[in-house]
Amino acid sequence: MTGSKRKAQATQESLHRIFTIPEAPNSTLGRIEKEISENLAGFLGNHIAAKEQLLSEIEKDFDCSKIPEQPTFVSDHMHHLLDKLVSQSVHTSSPSFIGHMTSALPYFILPLSKLMVGLNQNLVKIETSKAFTPLERQVLGMLHRLVYQNDDNFYDTWMHSANHSLGAFCSGGTVANITALWVARNNLLGPDGTFKGVAREGIFQALKHYQYEGLAILVSSRGHYSLKKSADILGLGQDSVIAISTDEHNKIDCQKLKEKCQALAAKNIRVLSIVGVAGTTETGNIDPLTEMAKIAQQYDCHFHVDAAWGGATLLSEKYRPLLQGIELADSVTIDAHKQMYVPMGAGLVVFKNPASVASIEHHAEYILRKGSKDLGSHTLEGSRPGMAMLVYASLHVISRPGYELLINQSIDKANYFADIIEQHPDFELITKPELCLLTYRYNPKVVQTFLTQADDDAQDLANSILDKLTKFIQKRQRENGKSFVSRTRIEVQKYRGRKTLVFRVVLANPLTSREILEDVLIEQNELAKESHTFLPKLISLSTSR
Amino acid sequence: MTGSKRKAQATQESLHRIFTIPEAPNSTLGRIEKEISENLAGFLGNHIAAKEQLLSEIEKDFDCSKIPEQPTFVSDHMHHLLDKLVSQSVHTSSPSFIGHMTSALPYFILPLSKLMVGLNQNLVKIETSKAFTPLERQVLGMLHRLVYQNDDNFYDTWMHSANHSLGAFCSGGTVANITALWVARNNLLGPDGTFKGVAREGIFQALKHYQYEGLAILVSSRGHYSLKKSADILGLGQDSVIAISTDEHNKIDCQKLKEKCQALAAKNIRVLSIVGVAGTTETGNIDPLTEMAKIAQQYDCHFHVDAAWGGATLLSEKYRPLLQGIELADSVTIDAHKQMYVPMGAGLVVFKNPASVASIEHHAEYILRKGSKDLGSHTLEGSRPGMAMLVYASLHVISRPGYELLINQSIDKANYFADIIEQHPDFELITKPELCLLTYRYNPKVVQTFLTQADDDAQDLANSILDKLTKFIQKRQRENGKSFVSRTRIEVQKYRGRKTLVFRVVLANPLTSREILEDVLIEQNELAKESHTFLPKLISLSTSR
Repeated sequence: MTGSKRKAQATQESLHRIFTIPEAPNSTLGRIEKEISENLAGFLGNHIAAKEQLLSEIEKDFDCSKIPEQPTFVSDHMHHLLDKLVSQSVHTSSPSFIGHMTSALPYFILPLSKLMVGLNQNLVKIETSKAFTPLERQVLGMLHRLVYQNDDNFYDTWMHSANHSLGAFCSGGTVANITALWVARNNLLGPDGTFKGVAREGIFQALKHYQYEGLAILVSSRGHYSLKKSADILGLGQDSVIAISTDEHNKIDCQKLKEKCQALAAKNIRVLSIVGVAGTTETGNIDPLTEMAKIAQQYDCHFHVDAAWGGATLLSEKYRPLLQGIELADSVTIDAHKQMYVPMGAGLVVFKNPASVASIEHHAEYILRKGSKDLGSHTLEGSRPGMAMLVYASLHVISRPGYELLINQSIDKANYFADIIEQHPDFELITKPELCLLTYRYNPKVVQTFLTQADDDAQDLANSILDKLTKFIQKRQRENGKSFVSRTRIEVQKYRGRKTLVFRVVLANPLTSREILEDVLIEQNELAKESHTFLPKLISLSTSR
Repeated sequence: MTGSKRKAQATQESLHRIFTIPEAPNSTLGRIEKEISENLAGFLGNHIAAKEQLLSEIEKDFDCSKIPEQPTFVSDHMHHLLDKLVSQSVHTSSPSFIGHMTSALPYFILPLSKLMVGLNQNLVKIETSKAFTPLERQVLGMLHRLVYQNDDNFYDTWMHSANHSLGAFCSGGTVANITALWVARNNLLGPDGTFKGVAREGIFQALKHYQYEGLAILVSSRGHYSLKKSADILGLGQDSVIAISTDEHNKIDCQKLKEKCQALAAKNIRVLSIVGVAGTTETGNIDPLTEMAKIAQQYDCHFHVDAAWGGATLLSEKYRPLLQGIELADSVTIDAHKQMYVPMGAGLVVFKNPASVASIEHHAEYILRKGSKDLGSHTLEGSRPGMAMLVYASLHVISRPGYELLINQSIDKANYFADIIEQHPDFELITKPELCLLTYRYNPKVVQTFLTQADDDAQDLANSILDKLTKFIQKRQRENGKSFVSRTRIEVQKYRGRKTLVFRVVLANPLTSREILEDVLIEQNELAKESHTFLPKLISLSTSR
C-alpha cells in the first residue's frame, strides 16, 4: 500500500468511527456531558467567565475563514469550545439574568433533547416523522383549545383532518407572526372570478383586481418589530404597519384605532389585520382584546393576537382573565420557548378556523401530495425538527396547574420587585408589571423632586443625562457579570411622552429569588456612584436652583 | 396548614425539583440516555417497531386536546414516549433508509447538542449569545469562502463587520431561499427619488413606480417547491415562478431560458431572479451554472443558486467542478442538516456582496440597535438557537478532507447502485446519479422490451400500470420496515416526457453498504411478485401481441 493510500484508509476508518463508536464516558466530551447531566448550573457557573470580555477580543478567536484541512480530535475540539466559546457565552439560565426572555429549563429537557436529536425526525412529512406528525397536531390542538376552548367534538373533527390544521408549529414567534399575516393576506385577497388569488398572482394584480389603494396592519406602538418585518416580507411594505398610540398603561388606544380605521377606509386603504399584543416585549402589557375584536369585526378584517410572550398566561386560571377576548382572535402566536420553558426554537400560531390555512397550502410530487397529512403542506418552513415533543412532554410533566404556579410566581415576583423599587428613594418605577415584566431606572430622590418642578427644557436636560446614566449602569452591570438587566427606550407619559432609556426586567426564571432582586438594586445603586460624570452633573443641575 | 395549601406547596416543591435536581442515572430517562450514548443504533433498533402501524391507529394515541390537569412523573412519561412515540417514529439513520435526505449523525453531535440546549443561547442578539455571534459569523464566512473563494483580506474586512453580513443562518433551506429572494426583491425595487423602496412601501407602489407589469423568477421544472412558496410569501405570486424545461439530464435548457427572458422583457415583465439548482431534490442534477450566470448578467437580474442539497459537494475537490459557476451567484442556499451531517434545523444562505443584506435590515429599541453586531438585524427569523456551533464543530472534527471522503463515497455508492440496477433484467434505471441521488423502477424485462416497440397508447397503458406497481412496491416495502426508498413522479424523456412514478434513492448515509443496496433490489423483486393485479396485467399486456 502506498503512503497516501494508507493515509486515506486511516481517515476513512476514523470517519467510520465517528458514526459508529460512541464517545467514551471518560473522554472529554463524556466528562462534560456527565457534568451537564449532574449539575448544569454548576457546569455553567464553572465554565462561563463571570467577567465580560470585549467582543472585539472574542472575535479574534473566530477570525479564520478557511475550513480546516486537518481533522481535530473530538476531545481537543471540546477543550477549544470550552475555552473559547462556552467561557464567553451568556449564562441565560442564571437566576440573576433577568434582562431577557430566555430563562432556565427543567432538567428532563436535556436528555429529552438528546433523544430528539438521536431520532432526527423531519416533521415536513410523515415519511420522515410518522408518530411525530399526530403528536405535533395534538400539541397544536392543546394550545388551540387553551385559546379557543371549543368542545371535544370540534377537536375530534379537526385535529387530525388531512386538509385542515389548527395551527402551525415553527421555529419562533417571528415566523408565527409572518404565517398568521400570510394566511390573513391570502384569505383577504383570495380567488375571485377570473382573478386566481394573491397566492397565485401576487399583490400587484390583487390590489388592481380588488381596487384597493393599499393595505394596512394596525397595531399599538408597542407592537413587536417582527410585524414590520412581516409586512416587508409579505410585500405590503413596512409603512403599511400603522402604529396606534397607547394609553399610560401601554395599551392601545381603541378610540384612536377606530378613527384610523375610518380614515383608512375613506382613503380606500383596506385594513388587512388589526393586531392585538398580549404581553408587549418591552413592558409586558396586554391590549384590550375584546374591544379590538369588535373593531376588527366592524371593519371586517383579520384579528391577530401576538401572544408570543403572554400566551402561556392562559395556563393560569388566576391570570387568564387578563387576556379576555383572545378567543375572538382569528389567529394567535404563542412562543413555547418563552414562558413554557422549552429550549430555543419552538413557536407556534393557532387559527380559529381550521380551514383558514388552505390559503397557504403547498404541494409537491415527492412529498405533501394532495390529501396527505404531511405537516409541511401548510408551514412556512420546510424541513423541521421534532421540537413539538419537548412541548408535549412539558405539558404532561409540568401539567396545567404546574404552569399556573410558575406563571403566578413570576407575576408575584415582579410585583415584589416593583414594590421595592417604589420604596427605594433613588429608583423610579417606570412601568408597573401586569405580567412579569417591568421597567425602571436609577434616579436619585433629589433629581426626582427636581423633575416634578422643572420646566420642559430643564426636565429634558435632566432626562437626557439620566439616559446616559442608565446606559452606563446597564453596561457596567453586564460587564461585571454578576447580574443582568436589559435596557430599552420607551415613551413615558409623565415626561410628556419623551422616549426615555430604562432598565427592562423579565422575571420568568423560577429560580430567581427575592434576595437576588434586592441585590440587583444594591449593585445598581453602587454602580451609579461609579459614574463620575453623569451623576455629579445631575445632582448639581437638580440642586443649583 | 390546610389540605389544599399543603398540596400547593408539594406541587411547588416538585416544580422546583425539576429545575434543580438532575435526572438520576438509574431513572428511566437516565437509562434511556445511557443507551442512546452507548449505542444509538441499538437503541433505535430496539425501540422503533419494524412493522409500520396505520397512521389512523397511531392517531388514537394522540387524540386528547386537553392539557393535562395532573402532572406525570418524568419516568412514567418516558415509558409513554417510548411506547407510543419512539416505537412509531421513523428510523431515519438506518443504513437501509435510503429514501430521503435525512441520514445518520456522527456520535459527537449527541452530547454536543445537549451542551447547546444546556447553554440555551438566543442568537438574535449578542446580549443572549455573546461568543456564539462571532462563531456564527465565522461559520458563514467559512461557507462563503467555500463558495466564493475570496482572499484573506476580503474576510478580514467583512466577516465581523457590523453593517454587513456574508450570509444568514436559519432553520433550513426554505427560509434560506425566501431570504435570498427577499434580498433580491428589495435590492431590485430599492429607494429611488421620492419612492422609499419596496421594503417601506410594498410591491404595489414599487411596481407602479418602476412601471413593470410584473416580476418573474425563472427556474428549471426541477426546482424545489419552496421557490413557489417564496414567491407566494413575498407577494409576487406563485405564477411568477416560471418553470423552464430541462434536457434529458434534468438540467435547465439554457436556450429556452434565454428565450423566456426575452419574451418577458418584451412584455415589460422584470426578471427578478434566475435560480440555478445545484442538486435537484428529485434527481440530484446540477444546472449549467456558468451559462445561467451569463444570462442573468445579460438581463441584469439576481442569480440565486439553490444548493441546499449539493452545496456540500464543494467540500470535495474531486466533485467541486460539477458546481462550476456557483461562485458567480449573488446568493447560494446550503443546508447543513443534509450532507453536512448536523441535526435537523440548520440551513444558511451566503451572499456574494456583504452589503446586499442592508436591504432587509431591521432595528428595534431594545435589541438590534443601529451599529450593533446583533445577527437578528438581517435574518428572517427572530430568536434562534445556537445550531451554528454544531456546524462549526463538524467542520473542525470532520475537516474538509473528511467531508470529501464522505461525499465521494456517497457518489461512488450511487454509481454502484445504478450499475446493479442496469445489470438487473427486471429493473429500469430512470435517472443516472450525478451526485448521490438516482431514480429507477421495477420493470420486468418483457415489459421493457414491449415498451420499446409499443405504440403511444399501448406505451401509456403499460406505464400507467407500472405506476401502480411502483406505488404498490414502495408502500409495501415501507410498511415492512426493512428498508425504505421514496417515490416521486418525474417527466421521462424516453416516454415522450410522460410524468412517471419512480423510486427515488438518496445515498448519503455513510453506513449504507453495497450489500444493503443489493438486498433492496432482492426485496423489491420479491414484493413485485406479491402484486396479484398489476404484475399479471402487465405481463399479459406485454405478451399478448
